[in-house]
Amino acid sequence: MKIVVDAMGGDFAPQNVIAGVVEAIKEFDVTIVLVGIEPRIQEELKKHSYPADRIEIVHAPEVVEMHEPATTVIRQKKNSSITIGVNLLKEKKCDAFISAGNTGACVAAATFILGLIKGVDRPGIGCILPSLLEPTFIIDMGANTAAKPEHLLQYAKMAKAYAQTVLGRPQPKIALLNIGEEESKGTGLEKEAHKLLEENEAAFIGNMEANEIYTGKADCIVCDGYVGNITLKVSEGLVESIGKLVKREIKKNPIAILGALLLKSSMKDARKSVDYSEYGGAPLLGVDGLVLISHGRSSPKAIKNAIRAAKREIDHNLLSKLKSEMAA
Amino acid sequence: MKIVVDAMGGDFAPQNVIAGVVEAIKEFDVTIVLVGIEPRIQEELKKHSYPADRIEIVHAPEVVEMHEPATTVIRQKKNSSITIGVNLLKEKKCDAFISAGNTGACVAAATFILGLIKGVDRPGIGCILPSLLEPTFIIDMGANTAAKPEHLLQYAKMAKAYAQTVLGRPQPKIALLNIGEEESKGTGLEKEAHKLLEENEAAFIGNMEANEIYTGKADCIVCDGYVGNITLKVSEGLVESIGKLVKREIKKNPIAILGALLLKSSMKDARKSVDYSEYGGAPLLGVDGLVLISHGRSSPKAIKNAIRAAKREIDHNLLSKLKSEMAA
Repeated sequence: MKIVVDAMGGDFAPQNVIAGVVEAIKEFDVTIVLVGIEPRIQEELKKHSYPADRIEIVHAPEVVEMHEPATTVIRQKKNSSITIGVNLLKEKKCDAFISAGNTGACVAAATFILGLIKGVDRPGIGCILPSLLEPTFIIDMGANTAAKPEHLLQYAKMAKAYAQTVLGRPQPKIALLNIGEEESKGTGLEKEAHKLLEENEAAFIGNMEANEIYTGKADCIVCDGYVGNITLKVSEGLVESIGKLVKREIKKNPIAILGALLLKSSMKDARKSVDYSEYGGAPLLGVDGLVLISHGRSSPKAIKNAIRAAKREIDHNLLSKLKSEMAA
Repeated sequence: MKIVVDAMGGDFAPQNVIAGVVEAIKEFDVTIVLVGIEPRIQEELKKHSYPADRIEIVHAPEVVEMHEPATTVIRQKKNSSITIGVNLLKEKKCDAFISAGNTGACVAAATFILGLIKGVDRPGIGCILPSLLEPTFIIDMGANTAAKPEHLLQYAKMAKAYAQTVLGRPQPKIALLNIGEEESKGTGLEKEAHKLLEENEAAFIGNMEANEIYTGKADCIVCDGYVGNITLKVSEGLVESIGKLVKREIKKNPIAILGALLLKSSMKDARKSVDYSEYGGAPLLGVDGLVLISHGRSSPKAIKNAIRAAKREIDHNLLSKLKSEMAA
């Protein structure tokens, strides 16, 4: 099994990427192809000890910056780590591609180079969110910020295949994110999508309000990419702010500091369930290949977990499952 | 000062509403007009002791259910507590109207009966959110789920007036919620709104990603009502789920239980800053009268705080400030 990792992707590349890759090959039975500026990769690799036969390097002279417009990247940076990495996947020289780099560029490159699965009009970024019960799979997190009702139906079908295959849920429940439970709620998009889902997807359980996302009531949630992106980032920001707020309050009071020390291990477990880096890369579903997008701020642990997530997708034959679901 | 309160509004009406009203009149110098089914109000009032001259009752034979479509309410329930209450405001028999009932019906009744302020095309629901610095005012939370760019500019102007008047911020900073900081980000709505705001509002500081909402970086945030509603509900659900998760982890470990006890007072302070009921009612801005909408699940404390918020709006002449801002 061979996974290509974009060595230049993310706010802390190549350091965090390479540290994560080294952790991963020690833990999982995978070979990693690092794509990026070779001298920088070599230099970074020197800081680690690892089984040398499990890492390959493919040189890519160009780097896509985090905020470059995706269209420019596709047209002008044909030798970037993203483009060359996705091409390795296209040529079947590897089984999956992971990048913590420019999300828009990854989506564009994957769509353009790999093409779409038959039955899919727009790819979507999925994400595994923690919940009070089992983790919930939500799609789209921002690949498609002008979704049409039929895209949401396609996301529902792909989410179902993902949940069945990778998450091991034989009968996943799928909900549509909306501002009210009644089918009359939402904008034109949600009203039409509700109708389409009800008519075409037996696993559809109806609308779900945003305050229920983290309850675990649904296995899969579908939404437009703009709304999904906001949902994810609000959650991320809120968890961070609550953490800071709690620390600030605790520091004011010595008894509270003692209390916090006694709580430490329990809090570690609780934090683990809401830590995005535990879930690693977000799958880009709908393109004809396994592509995972990691958070720009990915820690080495997040990169390692993205590799674990990619391995799981390969192990479970996700791509062929997605294809047969969309052909049905 | 006279404030009309919808006695029948909310999931726990009239109990919570009346309990909150009784708390409020003991604390603030206001007279409350309770509008709703008189015998039920009388019966509920019997459970409390309070200065009788500070509560008046206006009978309204009809009740709007929480999920009735707003248009039906306006056409068919002309004697509901919402309609009669808003009419009291229209006839200048009181200074503000508060309801924890059907939000859509409140928005529709207020718009239809009171009319809009000159310069406003669609009303918006504002909300005060806690942050690591000062509370942030965000608008729209769901009155207008198909906002146009010019609506977002109007929301920005009204938010500025609110922040200056009620929150005491002479020079508020206004941000546009978006999925990226660059002006090229977002859907057509955000791109055009960004341009309009930049050209017409000196207090505009640019786009803000959703993970920064709770940092306090902006005093006011504007967004489409669909996105605002999702933002608010994700936050609410996440805080609730984290609370449950933390409790569950603590219960597993006796040392952690002790730690939690020592932390109790600090956590109470932290929780207070993220508790919606501390902020009470959400102002409906743009209609020609002071209308506040409370959460359907409002506790007595939330109702009391909504009355405090209404009093503050009256004290600061919010309505005339909004009118002069929109006329400028």
